[in-house]
Amino acid sequence: MQMRNQYKGQLIIHPIMTGGIVPEEVQKRILEEGWTKVGYALCYDCIEGRSGLITKPPVKEFLQNIAEFFGGDIAEHTFGCRVAQFAVMKAISDYVENERPKDYAKVVVTDPLCHYSTGIAAEMTGFRMTEPPYSGYPEYKVEAKGFAERIEEIRRETGKLPGLIVVTHVEPYYGNMNPVEEVGEIAKEYDIPYMVNAAYTAGVMPINMKDFQADFLTVSAHKSMASLGPLGFLVTTYEWAKKLFKKSVILPEWSGRAFGKKIPNIFGCSVGGISLISAMYSFPYVIERVKKWDEELKKVRWFIEEMEKLDDLMMIGERPHRHHLTHFETPLFWEISKNHKRRGFFLAEEMIKRNIVGLHKGLSKHVKLSVYGLGWNEVRKVRDAFYEIAEKYVKKFNLEYRVSSPLAETPTSEGEEATS
Amino acid sequence: MQMRNQYKGQLIIHPIMTGGIVPEEVQKRILEEGWTKVGYALCYDCIEGRSGLITKPPVKEFLQNIAEFFGGDIAEHTFGCRVAQFAVMKAISDYVENERPKDYAKVVVTDPLCHYSTGIAAEMTGFRMTEPPYSGYPEYKVEAKGFAERIEEIRRETGKLPGLIVVTHVEPYYGNMNPVEEVGEIAKEYDIPYMVNAAYTAGVMPINMKDFQADFLTVSAHKSMASLGPLGFLVTTYEWAKKLFKKSVILPEWSGRAFGKKIPNIFGCSVGGISLISAMYSFPYVIERVKKWDEELKKVRWFIEEMEKLDDLMMIGERPHRHHLTHFETPLFWEISKNHKRRGFFLAEEMIKRNIVGLHKGLSKHVKLSVYGLGWNEVRKVRDAFYEIAEKYVKKFNLEYRVSSPLAETPTSEGEEATS
Repeated sequence: MQMRNQYKGQLIIHPIMTGGIVPEEVQKRILEEGWTKVGYALCYDCIEGRSGLITKPPVKEFLQNIAEFFGGDIAEHTFGCRVAQFAVMKAISDYVENERPKDYAKVVVTDPLCHYSTGIAAEMTGFRMTEPPYSGYPEYKVEAKGFAERIEEIRRETGKLPGLIVVTHVEPYYGNMNPVEEVGEIAKEYDIPYMVNAAYTAGVMPINMKDFQADFLTVSAHKSMASLGPLGFLVTTYEWAKKLFKKSVILPEWSGRAFGKKIPNIFGCSVGGISLISAMYSFPYVIERVKKWDEELKKVRWFIEEMEKLDDLMMIGERPHRHHLTHFETPLFWEISKNHKRRGFFLAEEMIKRNIVGLHKGLSKHVKLSVYGLGWNEVRKVRDAFYEIAEKYVKKFNLEYRVSSPLAETPTSEGEEATS
Repeated sequence: MQMRNQYKGQLIIHPIMTGGIVPEEVQKRILEEGWTKVGYALCYDCIEGRSGLITKPPVKEFLQNIAEFFGGDIAEHTFGCRVAQFAVMKAISDYVENERPKDYAKVVVTDPLCHYSTGIAAEMTGFRMTEPPYSGYPEYKVEAKGFAERIEEIRRETGKLPGLIVVTHVEPYYGNMNPVEEVGEIAKEYDIPYMVNAAYTAGVMPINMKDFQADFLTVSAHKSMASLGPLGFLVTTYEWAKKLFKKSVILPEWSGRAFGKKIPNIFGCSVGGISLISAMYSFPYVIERVKKWDEELKKVRWFIEEMEKLDDLMMIGERPHRHHLTHFETPLFWEISKNHKRRGFFLAEEMIKRNIVGLHKGLSKHVKLSVYGLGWNEVRKVRDAFYEIAEKYVKKFNLEYRVSSPLAETPTSEGEEATS
């Protein structure tokens, strides 16, 4: 009971947390309505035995809205995006092994910077995993043609096509946007099932899976939909829904009980808990915020420009940057860490002293962070913190650094005071 | 944002919710500490890349305590008990197929009243599922010898032993306690891996998996550990932990990235969200409450006795009853439902009018409920509600009923006023 939330009230710049921050009003509603009392809070009026079918509260309608919002036909909620990815690979595994063994090999082609959960889903379902290359330092870009090359390689080797293509819409290492539309073209040409993992984008920017020609879209509610976790969504087409969300057929041999409403690929029922409730409350807010994505990108690019004025600090990844996850190489901080008794920990710790939380502790050679959802004043505060820390330790350890050009003023967000 | 918690403040008798109710003080702590702000609230100080290894807050230590509390060696948290069951079947599937294909068949023997999630886990992992019989109406008891008989049958048929035995400690249909210790003996004799699903018992009554000779114990935090959901625990021995919690070995072919800290059978990392936080806060409370299990059983048995005075209403399941989940057949309410314009819905709706929530809507021929954790006054209130409803409609529809003997007074719980 003594356990504290050490970072309560601090400014969050954790690269995978900012898209998941639950709006104040939603938190307030959760408390007011007493949703913290039982895990099964949504299940009182479950008549049919699966959370996705509950109409009071309107979970079923909510899932239809989710599907529509992302340009799909059918959606189910899952225990996180990782389980959504697993469900797709499980369904494709059955498809490849039982329906089309002559056409498809049990190989998944993924982008080379996909999240580890994609690899784990492949491992759990017995897929071999191969990738096209990226361009290397400092942009690490992936081109669509690499997917076609891998497909051809697999075909030469096995006489079959890969069973699945997976592309992470924006990848979690550098925040690069992958060529999901071009890969969608390739998938369509070869007739290979195609999944886009939008864990980092669905819910922060406009997404329509039809634009990608994707058969499956996987979404993380606690990463990008202003929701508590673990919670994910799996969106698909009418056609694939039949396989992906196939109902249970197992018949235990003595009792003969059937579980005909349950969907095995998502564990029967994904249970409606506080995470789903938070996602339902946050959804209207998410619908609105994706319309302001351009404003968010402005902040990100301003921040990158400002950070790059600091000595030889450099953003790694594509330019112009198209996502809020940013990765910087920070040789100056690395240099400082060699002199500092807290070594690489000094940087995250200095930020926390300034009430800014979310840098990976121990890292100072590279940092990843996100200013998504911050007001302009807060973005400036984050920039200033890095400059203050640099200045402090450059003096202390008698190092050298330069600032390439004068720092900029920030525009003003609604409700904020002008900065000078 | 208009979505209401319709049942806020009502007395909960839902058969699978009462063991999961989060203590007031824990709810208060969750609010005070602001844990409703981000899904990844536990992950700020994640250094190693898996929630079970986090030491700040002390998740790692907590999981060690959980293992110890249940008599096991190693525990991991999971996305609910269903994922814990899946993980066991996945591990056994690999064991049977890759390590011991000559000795074991891919067959799981389960009790005939296991939860559907056991069937779904079997279906997901490709197990054939067979069961010993139960004794039938009205006790539905399962005997250990039925497991031995099924094992022998499978051996005759396949020349191999079943790969896994699963017993639900207390089953969810009638609240019967299965002979987990005797089945443990049988599992040991035949050398068959043995899992006990304690979703309905671990966290409400004392449990030591060594007493069962179980290799795996699966637990539901939102069913029986006073916790938000979805959350489960999977507890095992040092020996089995190596297989069950085996680290990832997949190597994507171009990047060669390894995910060596991740555990595929639990999706790599089970993410530390608000559910895990609630379980950590509730744990000291759970440790204390299991010591008072006898007092809870007294309430349950008192309640059964009182309910059975009402006409031909009868508890279905074993006697004496050893769990808080109770199942009654209620011919009187069934009779009323035939006359009532709301049909079977009248019963749950009449209870809700009396601020008692959790009866399955639409059912009046049978009801399942739990008075676990209620004060004596509340238990009496639930009894009285059933009697009031009976009386009201017997008069209204000109039916007949009898009360076999005078209703009893209730003992008094600490802090309650005496009833008269």
